[in-house]
Amino acid sequence: MTSAALSLEGSHFFAGKKVLITGGVGFLGSNLAIRLLELGSDVTLIDTLSSGSGANLFNIGSLGKDVRVVVGGMGDQKLIAPLISRVDVVFNLAGKTSHLDSMEDPFQDLDSNVVEQLRFLELCRKLNPGLRIIFASTRQVYGKPEYLPVDEKHAVNVVDVNGVNKVAAENYHHVFQAVYGLRPSILRLTNSYGPRMRVKDARQNFLGIWVKKAIAGEAIEIFGDGTQLRDFNHVADVVDAFLRVAARDECIGKTYNLGSEEPLSLRAIADIFISLESSTSVKIVPFPEKLKGIDIGNFYGDFRLLEQETGWRPRHSMESGLSETLDFYRENRAQYGI
Amino acid sequence: MTSAALSLEGSHFFAGKKVLITGGVGFLGSNLAIRLLELGSDVTLIDTLSSGSGANLFNIGSLGKDVRVVVGGMGDQKLIAPLISRVDVVFNLAGKTSHLDSMEDPFQDLDSNVVEQLRFLELCRKLNPGLRIIFASTRQVYGKPEYLPVDEKHAVNVVDVNGVNKVAAENYHHVFQAVYGLRPSILRLTNSYGPRMRVKDARQNFLGIWVKKAIAGEAIEIFGDGTQLRDFNHVADVVDAFLRVAARDECIGKTYNLGSEEPLSLRAIADIFISLESSTSVKIVPFPEKLKGIDIGNFYGDFRLLEQETGWRPRHSMESGLSETLDFYRENRAQYGI
Repeated sequence: MTSAALSLEGSHFFAGKKVLITGGVGFLGSNLAIRLLELGSDVTLIDTLSSGSGANLFNIGSLGKDVRVVVGGMGDQKLIAPLISRVDVVFNLAGKTSHLDSMEDPFQDLDSNVVEQLRFLELCRKLNPGLRIIFASTRQVYGKPEYLPVDEKHAVNVVDVNGVNKVAAENYHHVFQAVYGLRPSILRLTNSYGPRMRVKDARQNFLGIWVKKAIAGEAIEIFGDGTQLRDFNHVADVVDAFLRVAARDECIGKTYNLGSEEPLSLRAIADIFISLESSTSVKIVPFPEKLKGIDIGNFYGDFRLLEQETGWRPRHSMESGLSETLDFYRENRAQYGI
Repeated sequence: MTSAALSLEGSHFFAGKKVLITGGVGFLGSNLAIRLLELGSDVTLIDTLSSGSGANLFNIGSLGKDVRVVVGGMGDQKLIAPLISRVDVVFNLAGKTSHLDSMEDPFQDLDSNVVEQLRFLELCRKLNPGLRIIFASTRQVYGKPEYLPVDEKHAVNVVDVNGVNKVAAENYHHVFQAVYGLRPSILRLTNSYGPRMRVKDARQNFLGIWVKKAIAGEAIEIFGDGTQLRDFNHVADVVDAFLRVAARDECIGKTYNLGSEEPLSLRAIADIFISLESSTSVKIVPFPEKLKGIDIGNFYGDFRLLEQETGWRPRHSMESGLSETLDFYRENRAQYGI
């Protein structure tokens, strides 16, 4: 991630700010931490470091003692209470992301995405109800789109347990704003990619496993015919969105989509991979039975509300973003299980 | 409840059917059980009999050995597995209903309305995925109405933790239909009243505590100015709605509002109470601080979809319904803590 690529107007907002990032050792959390340290924030990360998650201590290895890392659950009162009381902004990123895992072990997803969130919010409202909190939700809450691009007025039509649970967590944030004065914003992320993502498997995102296979010189697998459209954001753009929203009180209580200029088919993305890594190839495989029930077909989001209210636009093209991403993983294969 | 008042067309549908009612010893569950026994169903009730709930063994005292009662949680595999395998229809009524309790102990509401529901649905999909299931949800999911009357297309805007959790439970039902073939319908209930409701306090419904106060010769308390509009259903009409929906496969996967012909102000309802019980009176009190944040203002629902698809209409007027209700509690004061 090149910080110069981020043209955040209100970057002085974060100088000296006390920031807590839940899920802070994961993909998005670590990229956000790196950027916030550049901006002069006082950064604390909390993370369970659980094995199925995006947490990877290498993600924050370059930060050394500039960042405080607390290992544990975000709902653990003893750990969290002393942190919350002193914090200005929380980037609330912790939680399970795998749709498939949420069907195979729905209780683990419920615990992570609902029970822990409720514990955390209860502590926030008791100890520091005026804090600013930006919650990472997902485009998955819209389910199969009724129209494209999907804006924030689109109905919520969840198709898997992860979606049910993320909606519940969004709703807790809204209720805690209305009743206790918390100041939340919700960002509904689409496929995010870039340095520090989990690439061992497809738990965070199918691009993870594609990066791994490409670098290992194996074939990328496309489920179905490869015509499904998706949108993608480089993590630097996602970080920029979080910072812009956190710095603006006008964004309190609102929900924003992210998204990209132009959706791409899975086949088109595979072609970019092949152009960037000649040792890989594409294999079309039948749609796995256990994914069929929860697939959402074509999806791309409308990010105009976020643009209008914060000036955010995605600035990384898929070609340059993937090129930088592949370089990162070529340099750090062992650290990411490639 | 006079069963003659129920003109259910498809009543033969229930003859011989194996029916499980979760929360079966509560207000709605017990009234449903009584009706189903009249229709010739084989009825099993499961209930935690927890002290804060609507469960009251007197509710089903008249049924004797005609009904099987299992005491425990609906998510308890040992108890539930043998029941689910043999069941045709589940009326899924268990869960906490108090908005205020859900703010004061959100984890208990979460456990009851989400965790236990997910446990139950997991057992259903594993053991008997084709079963018919009718889930009791609440008009509270709509929050403060954007328009009146509120139809099913109205946005979900929860205002309290109970609302968040009921939405999650609704969504689990939808996901389990799409992925596993469960056959659910959702009924969003408004204020239900009638014989066998909890009247010790306002946990189920403010009409409960009004009934208790009226019969005890104490003053009924109205919060605010008494102009708030609400709609109400006599429990016999609610039972009729559940039976009609359960008997129709066309209702699978759908969500229906209940509602009444004409909304009434709290003041107008208080006047009915006074006309029916001369020893009571009305006291206007300021809106309690802890309820202000979660009050939804005027509310009445549009039940035309349910009417169109099942022929359901509410058949009890508030005057006759409340008159019958007060008679029931005059006869059974001690059993309901009056």
